[in-house]
Amino acid sequence: MTKLSSEEIQSKLQTLNNWSFEDNFLQKQFGFKDFSEAFGFMSRVALIAEKLDHHPNWSNVYNKVDIRLQTHDAGGITEKDFKLATLIDKIA
Amino acid sequence: MTKLSSEEIQSKLQTLNNWSFEDNFLQKQFGFKDFSEAFGFMSRVALIAEKLDHHPNWSNVYNKVDIRLQTHDAGGITEKDFKLATLIDKIA
Repeated sequence: MTKLSSEEIQSKLQTLNNWSFEDNFLQKQFGFKDFSEAFGFMSRVALIAEKLDHHPNWSNVYNKVDIRLQTHDAGGITEKDFKLATLIDKIA
Repeated sequence: MTKLSSEEIQSKLQTLNNWSFEDNFLQKQFGFKDFSEAFGFMSRVALIAEKLDHHPNWSNVYNKVDIRLQTHDAGGITEKDFKLATLIDKIA
């Protein structure tokens, strides 16, 4: 996996739903009705992440889930991050 | 639920396994073999949190899970946080 350039990232961001590129991560916050709904979402994301063998950096406080994606081995954003982000958007 | 004093917190910390009190939160990092094991742990903690109606602030990066507990409505640490921490230690 090769690291994408800033230009490639900005261009591909248009294909996602409200993700941003900050601190060398693709980032997005998701809001839900309550903890149960938020953790249900996290469980579905976990299954996809495990299947892709590509895992998010993420945090949760009650009904909020913050997700940050990066390909650690490439030192930046790769196609894998965009693939995972696209699948996460489909779940949310 | 009444907020515990610093003295009460320091005393009760002795009953837990390696939690610390920082930034007005009870905190601990848990390490696992891989993401699957880490998320399995999170799922069990989620069920307990929902049952107690008391939810953690937490984050996960691959095999690491960072948990921070506080009773938001009380503006600090209460018995509820120690109860949840004790149950989390039992799972881990």
